[in-house]
Amino acid sequence: MFDEIPTSRPDTPLLDRIDTPADLRELSEKDLAPLADELRAYLLYTVGQSGGHFGAGLGVVELTIALHYIYHTPEDRLVWDVGHQTYPHKILTGRRHRMGSIRQGGGLAGFPKRGESEYDTFGVGHSSTSLSAAQGMAIASAMTESERKCAAIIGDGAMTAGMAFEALNHIAHTDTDLLVILNDNNMSISPNVGGLATYLSKVWGSKFYNSLREGSKQVLTKIPSAWEFARRTEEHFKGFMSPGTLFEEMGFNYIGPIDGHDLGSLVRYLRNLREVKGPKLLHIITRKGKGFGPAEEDPVGYHALNKLEPKPAPKKPGGLKYQKVFGDWLCDVAALDERIVGITPAMREGSGMVDFAQKFPERFYDVAIAEQHAVTLAAGLACEGQKPVVAIYSTFLQRAYDQLIHDVALQNLDVTFAIDRAGLVGEDGPTHGGAFDLTYLRCIPNMVIAAPSDENECRQLLYTAWCHEGPAAVRYPRGTGPGVTIEPEMTVLPLGRGRECRQGKTVAILNFGASLRSALEVAETLDASVCDMRFVKPLDTALIDKMTASHDLLVTLEENAIAGGAGSAVSEYLALKGVTTAWLPLGFRDEFVEHDTPKQQLANQGLDVAGIEAAISQRLRTL
Amino acid sequence: MFDEIPTSRPDTPLLDRIDTPADLRELSEKDLAPLADELRAYLLYTVGQSGGHFGAGLGVVELTIALHYIYHTPEDRLVWDVGHQTYPHKILTGRRHRMGSIRQGGGLAGFPKRGESEYDTFGVGHSSTSLSAAQGMAIASAMTESERKCAAIIGDGAMTAGMAFEALNHIAHTDTDLLVILNDNNMSISPNVGGLATYLSKVWGSKFYNSLREGSKQVLTKIPSAWEFARRTEEHFKGFMSPGTLFEEMGFNYIGPIDGHDLGSLVRYLRNLREVKGPKLLHIITRKGKGFGPAEEDPVGYHALNKLEPKPAPKKPGGLKYQKVFGDWLCDVAALDERIVGITPAMREGSGMVDFAQKFPERFYDVAIAEQHAVTLAAGLACEGQKPVVAIYSTFLQRAYDQLIHDVALQNLDVTFAIDRAGLVGEDGPTHGGAFDLTYLRCIPNMVIAAPSDENECRQLLYTAWCHEGPAAVRYPRGTGPGVTIEPEMTVLPLGRGRECRQGKTVAILNFGASLRSALEVAETLDASVCDMRFVKPLDTALIDKMTASHDLLVTLEENAIAGGAGSAVSEYLALKGVTTAWLPLGFRDEFVEHDTPKQQLANQGLDVAGIEAAISQRLRTL
Repeated sequence: MFDEIPTSRPDTPLLDRIDTPADLRELSEKDLAPLADELRAYLLYTVGQSGGHFGAGLGVVELTIALHYIYHTPEDRLVWDVGHQTYPHKILTGRRHRMGSIRQGGGLAGFPKRGESEYDTFGVGHSSTSLSAAQGMAIASAMTESERKCAAIIGDGAMTAGMAFEALNHIAHTDTDLLVILNDNNMSISPNVGGLATYLSKVWGSKFYNSLREGSKQVLTKIPSAWEFARRTEEHFKGFMSPGTLFEEMGFNYIGPIDGHDLGSLVRYLRNLREVKGPKLLHIITRKGKGFGPAEEDPVGYHALNKLEPKPAPKKPGGLKYQKVFGDWLCDVAALDERIVGITPAMREGSGMVDFAQKFPERFYDVAIAEQHAVTLAAGLACEGQKPVVAIYSTFLQRAYDQLIHDVALQNLDVTFAIDRAGLVGEDGPTHGGAFDLTYLRCIPNMVIAAPSDENECRQLLYTAWCHEGPAAVRYPRGTGPGVTIEPEMTVLPLGRGRECRQGKTVAILNFGASLRSALEVAETLDASVCDMRFVKPLDTALIDKMTASHDLLVTLEENAIAGGAGSAVSEYLALKGVTTAWLPLGFRDEFVEHDTPKQQLANQGLDVAGIEAAISQRLRTL
Repeated sequence: MFDEIPTSRPDTPLLDRIDTPADLRELSEKDLAPLADELRAYLLYTVGQSGGHFGAGLGVVELTIALHYIYHTPEDRLVWDVGHQTYPHKILTGRRHRMGSIRQGGGLAGFPKRGESEYDTFGVGHSSTSLSAAQGMAIASAMTESERKCAAIIGDGAMTAGMAFEALNHIAHTDTDLLVILNDNNMSISPNVGGLATYLSKVWGSKFYNSLREGSKQVLTKIPSAWEFARRTEEHFKGFMSPGTLFEEMGFNYIGPIDGHDLGSLVRYLRNLREVKGPKLLHIITRKGKGFGPAEEDPVGYHALNKLEPKPAPKKPGGLKYQKVFGDWLCDVAALDERIVGITPAMREGSGMVDFAQKFPERFYDVAIAEQHAVTLAAGLACEGQKPVVAIYSTFLQRAYDQLIHDVALQNLDVTFAIDRAGLVGEDGPTHGGAFDLTYLRCIPNMVIAAPSDENECRQLLYTAWCHEGPAAVRYPRGTGPGVTIEPEMTVLPLGRGRECRQGKTVAILNFGASLRSALEVAETLDASVCDMRFVKPLDTALIDKMTASHDLLVTLEENAIAGGAGSAVSEYLALKGVTTAWLPLGFRDEFVEHDTPKQQLANQGLDVAGIEAAISQRLRTL
């Protein structure tokens, strides 16, 4: 058990011999427990050096070792759900020496990535995809009469998503030869919620767990059926089914629960299970943050770590985080209006809703990893005159796109979307980028879409969107704003009205969102006009008309894909009006943006000050 | 039991007295069964006159009567999942005389619609939304301390969707006061699949069902626990749990299964259940098409009905249905390449996959209503070198948008999407319209997107997309093509290359997809050039350059929202190149398109020949 992150490289004689899992498979079984200690020490050390997620990884050290020990990777396929947990996997699969580069530009990705290693079978930034993907691989294996085996490793939190349920249904129906490992640590990033979680958590709280552990060692005979079990332990059975009932009923061969930190058990079970045909579910119990005292005690706080700094990190420039701006606004408006309901799909901390949840617990709904449900739940509330706010990351709103169209917008219901992590998100990379929301939202009729340029505008636009009686979205970036003063008073800004920030000539930059400071800086050099458009929909057409009439070139600037984004909205407006003013669209190119620092990502996209200035200057030369 | 659709209006003395559910509640309980007979006769008669869905409606005649008899509608909230089943509901809620107008322009919608009646609490064109919406309403009821009660009615098919599972989880967790009625007819539109369906279907096949029916009459005491039951009926218990186990384990008070055609039972159970607090699930067994012999025997074939014609309907103009073109192509290519796998989310018939399913059952996957899983399953297959084809309606692909981005496109996996019902879909109205796919797809990096203009091009572009080693989509409309000859040979068309169809002057119409014939007709009048662009992504930039150089006005024409659609792609290209040729974008306006005939819908959008011509002529006058 560690109480501190090691600051010097620990001795890892066993680990040093493992360049690939084949090396691991040369070890004797008795070496595996010491190897786990070394792996845990090395993981803590490297994450301390580079920062990153480690709570989930600490919880699966033994599982990772056992899987690579028994399964013939890379020929066998391991699909890890939500990549946070794969640091030990990366260390054991030839990337030990590169762990210091994790989540850095050009370095290892924070999640499994197919392009990075043949051991990374599937990119898993978003949760709950592993069962579907692994089923596809298992079906392919059967089609090609391969001997390959497939296993998916999924947490109890990820299991709450509908997508995982869809896959369980289908795996059972098709009798797919697949091992599902349910890694049950009784929490997702936030403590999870839902009937399934309640169900699983019974395992933890009951004496039944211990007796069951013994009973379940009879692997390969199915767990004694509930009936036989009941005959033996009637007192336990009343009001409490075997935890496998649910999965057994769906058609899985259920084994467990077993201790996921007991390497001997894991190896024994996996060795046998690898040879069993059909759908199997191995239920293991692990502890997030296992082996690191502070993380075991506060697994939410120790989900990830910033790197250890030799001295206190310098205060970052800029103001409040946008998440904090949102959370404060939500509390303020909730105090004024009891119709407000705050909804998050398992992102209470990330979305800045901790205060709201504490102050207004009866109006706070963490629905677990269930984006589809989150949005339609809000629609139902809005039908009855409540004023729900769905806080959701841009990348996760993609999961509820149909619900947004079919349940909210089509019925013109009064739901406010606080869209967080819009634009580039830095180290989390392309799986978590919010590069498309302006495009996929603005084609939806009835939507109002706002893109604030600073913290105060974020607060006021949230209030404006929320007061608007219809579907409205405010999209704001990850991280801190420029540091403007936030007005406590909440004011409804005029819908579809931007503002002129600078008067220049020849070029007018129509800015949508967080890039306003860069636009103004460029404008100083080029003597351009700058408008803070505030709204992507409805557009401020009067302001566009004015700019068109008095400038030779319109530049649209946004942190969203150029394809179909806010700039395109401007061009459509001009085209339908019959105006042919020159237009330069600036935004993300048609490519996924790799992980790096946010600043570097913007520079790579030509959206830092130098890039914007160069693009405009070049375009001016051809006017 | 009817064996034919009545062709003259049946006598319905009881039904004639019911203008609102309040009138229904004046009836004595003994009148309800005769009323059900009348309602069934009237439903058959009106659907015979107007066409529409009726199999589902016939199955819930008794349930609909019982619900409105017991629940205080409209103050109480009934949320019907997938609106097909709500014709009886519409008849009983003041729309009896308007049933003949159903699905016609200006007439009743085919689904519940909030704007149509205060009894339609939620618009439910897509499946599996009812639980989330009803939970929202129930929470609102609690927040406002209202006496209002809420109930959701969901079929076993709709229950396979992940979204329904997410809602069940959350309802149980929040202990929401909500009645869920599981209307179990052992099928969705296609016979459903999955572990849950297998689980439910056990109820049907077993003697257990009958004994349970008796046992479950002790409503309001929970169903005897499986343990007690087991003591009484050990032989039944072995290998077979109570059908309520799954829901009980999640935290629902489970009642059932009961006969959903027994009005006496329904009324008795509902009367009691309305007063019980907390999450309740009433499991009823019904027969789709109940009371109409042919539909009971072939419920898939009698899912919906065309209206009875006095004489055989004249052969519709045009050629094969695009669905048939797709299905034939899929069979042809499957015969050539054993790597092909066909995947549908519960739309085997609708997508034209019946032949494929019969010829290649081992490579056909109907995953049930599980769009998210369908796409990521395909991603998993593609990882292993298989060549999956996902057949999906444009409107339902919205449900798998994140999976398309995160699991397929980001990893550049070789999955082909056959996107059906793209554009306007006529009588099904805005819930089923395919108005946004070109927008929401083209912002995704790595995607290839094709839009064929006729049946043969559809076949060849499907083949081209499928041969392309990466994510590719072919979008085609509902209904028949123009009737061109289909070449049996499959040819890979050059990626991102369109073709010139007509040389004219001044105006060049760049057409994307099924509107090509209209474009050509307009071009004859205006002497315009016409290009069949074929690809929305990558664009044929050489062809655009050529048209730009030789014409004064570019018109883009597509059956997709103008916002962010194919036309915008052209404008972005021109802008980045620094060209300012005049551009007129034609497509759907920024509004949801109400149900009507497809022809009238197009005319209303200004996209029939007259509308296109008028728009271009007007724009020419301002050049």
